[in-house]
Amino acid sequence: MHKSREGWHWTPGSGLQAGIPSIAVIEPSQMIRNTNDMFDVIVIGAGYTGLTAARDTSTTGLKTLLLEGRDRIGGRTWSSEIDGYPYEMGGTWVHWFQPHVYRELSRYGMKDHLVHSTDYTKKHNFFTLRTSTGARNMSHEEEDELFARAVKKFVNVDGVFGKSVMPFPFSAYSNEEVYKYANLSVADRIAQISHDLSSDERHAVEAFVLLCSGGTTENSAFLDFLRWWAAANYDYKTLLDTIIVFKLKCGQSSFAKRFFEEAQASGNLSYSFSTPVVHIDSSKGLVQMRTKDGQYFSAKKVICTAPLNVLEEIEFNPPLDCAKREAASLKHVNQCVKVHAEIRDPEMRSWSGVTYPDNKLVIGVADGTTPAGKTHCVFFGCDVNHMHADEDIDQTLRAIKEFGPMEIDRLVFHNWSKDEFAKGAWVWYRPGMEVQYLEALRKRQGPILFANSDWAAGGWRSFIDGAIQSGTEAALIVCQELMPISRTSRL
Amino acid sequence: MHKSREGWHWTPGSGLQAGIPSIAVIEPSQMIRNTNDMFDVIVIGAGYTGLTAARDTSTTGLKTLLLEGRDRIGGRTWSSEIDGYPYEMGGTWVHWFQPHVYRELSRYGMKDHLVHSTDYTKKHNFFTLRTSTGARNMSHEEEDELFARAVKKFVNVDGVFGKSVMPFPFSAYSNEEVYKYANLSVADRIAQISHDLSSDERHAVEAFVLLCSGGTTENSAFLDFLRWWAAANYDYKTLLDTIIVFKLKCGQSSFAKRFFEEAQASGNLSYSFSTPVVHIDSSKGLVQMRTKDGQYFSAKKVICTAPLNVLEEIEFNPPLDCAKREAASLKHVNQCVKVHAEIRDPEMRSWSGVTYPDNKLVIGVADGTTPAGKTHCVFFGCDVNHMHADEDIDQTLRAIKEFGPMEIDRLVFHNWSKDEFAKGAWVWYRPGMEVQYLEALRKRQGPILFANSDWAAGGWRSFIDGAIQSGTEAALIVCQELMPISRTSRL
Repeated sequence: MHKSREGWHWTPGSGLQAGIPSIAVIEPSQMIRNTNDMFDVIVIGAGYTGLTAARDTSTTGLKTLLLEGRDRIGGRTWSSEIDGYPYEMGGTWVHWFQPHVYRELSRYGMKDHLVHSTDYTKKHNFFTLRTSTGARNMSHEEEDELFARAVKKFVNVDGVFGKSVMPFPFSAYSNEEVYKYANLSVADRIAQISHDLSSDERHAVEAFVLLCSGGTTENSAFLDFLRWWAAANYDYKTLLDTIIVFKLKCGQSSFAKRFFEEAQASGNLSYSFSTPVVHIDSSKGLVQMRTKDGQYFSAKKVICTAPLNVLEEIEFNPPLDCAKREAASLKHVNQCVKVHAEIRDPEMRSWSGVTYPDNKLVIGVADGTTPAGKTHCVFFGCDVNHMHADEDIDQTLRAIKEFGPMEIDRLVFHNWSKDEFAKGAWVWYRPGMEVQYLEALRKRQGPILFANSDWAAGGWRSFIDGAIQSGTEAALIVCQELMPISRTSRL
Repeated sequence: MHKSREGWHWTPGSGLQAGIPSIAVIEPSQMIRNTNDMFDVIVIGAGYTGLTAARDTSTTGLKTLLLEGRDRIGGRTWSSEIDGYPYEMGGTWVHWFQPHVYRELSRYGMKDHLVHSTDYTKKHNFFTLRTSTGARNMSHEEEDELFARAVKKFVNVDGVFGKSVMPFPFSAYSNEEVYKYANLSVADRIAQISHDLSSDERHAVEAFVLLCSGGTTENSAFLDFLRWWAAANYDYKTLLDTIIVFKLKCGQSSFAKRFFEEAQASGNLSYSFSTPVVHIDSSKGLVQMRTKDGQYFSAKKVICTAPLNVLEEIEFNPPLDCAKREAASLKHVNQCVKVHAEIRDPEMRSWSGVTYPDNKLVIGVADGTTPAGKTHCVFFGCDVNHMHADEDIDQTLRAIKEFGPMEIDRLVFHNWSKDEFAKGAWVWYRPGMEVQYLEALRKRQGPILFANSDWAAGGWRSFIDGAIQSGTEAALIVCQELMPISRTSRL
């Protein structure tokens, strides 16, 4: 297994080290099949969007070049196997209610690779709640009741828990009533229901929504949460099941690799890693791009999968339209902090906890048992009390120990806020931003298509599902435009 | 629009007529691109399984021949547009929790084409229950409570409504406990809980399960129902939502046609309709097949999508393995009767009803409003009191009128029991059959792959979703085996 220059690893013995091993690192890092020819399509970015797009175009017979700034595939989703255990640095959980990702898991014969993150059979089988009013432990049943009660109040804008406002999660605007909530922030919505929230409920719903948004209550849109809720069938347990319960036994990178290998097997894929694109010129019909290291590549079409928060890093000629530039400059709010810890006590396997609002991490959950028999816990923070986990390891360790006494034998994490190719985690819009910019972000500019989970059209925008959906759609358009006979009607 | 020789249409004025119009009928009916060459792959059957497989192989560059006995695409799913209204002759409803079909709907830009079958805003907003003890009307809320209560008792084999017995709907045997129910019939399960069922509840659960199975309580396996229930998140309303609520505005055939047209656009598709295959010889390495009209075709690989109940109509050399032949000879039990009626009264749009066990139709639901402003209702029968709707129209009209007084201006239906290429509707196994034969049915024989929703590996076996899943998987295998460079690893 090769080592990525990304990610951080800390143990008491070795201290903090940059770079962690991953099967997502591709060697050799460049493989160009036809240097002199023009490519049919260049896909920028090898996250799930780009991997899906490049797979679909290459297997359909199009000469495809995949350019990626990182040394690995997966974008905001990748796993590092350390001492025989896969740590998920970003995107982790999937579910069969997420159609695009599940279709791919099933197609690659991986549907039986799902394992449960939760295991309530061990001794420390409880939930810790530490708020400004003190700390206490409760059963997971009480935890679920508290969070379900609070979240249901939060989404209940219409007396039927959002179901009338957003009856089709995959067509969020099918009922125009939903526009009434376009400018609502999470804080605004909390204010509307604060008279009906106990102190526990308020802490619970804020912590939970911030786990989802990675922002602050003020800068996080209510509408994103309503869509997640609708996509999860308007039910708290189903929401948990879809966002934080089922993960891949072998790690996400074992899944991402299938896309890449299928594309390779087509014989039509060229690729180059560690090759950021800095300039895209489509002013002369075909598209020419320049990479940071001075290479030039040309193609008939381009699928650009750069996420919202780094879209302005690429120079376009002609320039991006005004709405895209505005959105890219505003940026989305998700500055999620995700830190894995290997905890000595195996009985912690059944634990979870929230410390909010005074800690630098908000939620912790036991997520597995390592080969050493210790407990793997994962902790999440957001832009409230944001920290850079790599800058001060003692602070990071203290933030974990705020959840309760623990002996920490290892930390593994990726600092997404400092990541030059993401500048944040999964998308979460500012109030008003979705309605104002979503359509614009999806719009192509001539031969350049823009595909990313950040503006995917489905219910699972911001998820791996949305990435695959977006890549699938972009590839279909490119194939239809470039394949010799194209008679697919749009009824 | 061309007229299929399939389906029946009756009006008081014209009487019963065979054949109805459908965009699923393909003209010209044959288009062979390379008569002298051997094909890479022959796909037998142009239902969703075959359409998906042929699309995926042809767009991946394989010379593909699609052979279909009918004059149309879609198999057990097709729609007929009559006076501007699409009647679904077979498979109808889809949902975003069905990953394979939803991925395709989304990919073809059709996710906003979903409409609600139910509309509770009209005057006759009630549910009619007619059992052996009499008839009465109740509200739809009471209907849902009655059916949810009864169905929950039916599935509650483990105290948690089946969730511990079948925790992963897409891997039905992940908990071996499930094998305890392998031989249980619906009647057996009803007997286990009969002490706890009111007369209404018993009629409700039997009618509901028979709507799902199309068989009798004695010959229908309990396990199939448990899987549907698990796939629908162990919830009655979600089960309704996934099986009988969301349909395509323009009819299923408008969706099926996208697959066919994408395959055509690849330039690699040959096809021949009204061309049943009668003999498949794979004894000499490549596969040669003979059609009923005496044509011969050869290919390196074959994807046979003939459903279980007609699998024995094709002669194989070497013969099918013993388990396949046994299953094909036993057959599954679904003899669903589905009859569409155009009802004069527009206020019936909010009605539904059950007449069981004495009527020849069991369930009726309002499903739309026709351009003439009348109500479209759809009625279902099963193998209990089975009838052939085309053989005695007066009997069919009487069976509908058993639900209540109605003026019937039109009937449209397809007799699936007499259908030579299906001999029944969607799959529903006999007790014990699934565990005994499912794996065997999925097994390839040399260059011949067997793909069908009848033995799809997912949670939505017997649905359109399972068909697409099965076709997707078969195509991937064929592509990997036939494409020049094939390095896709299986981790």
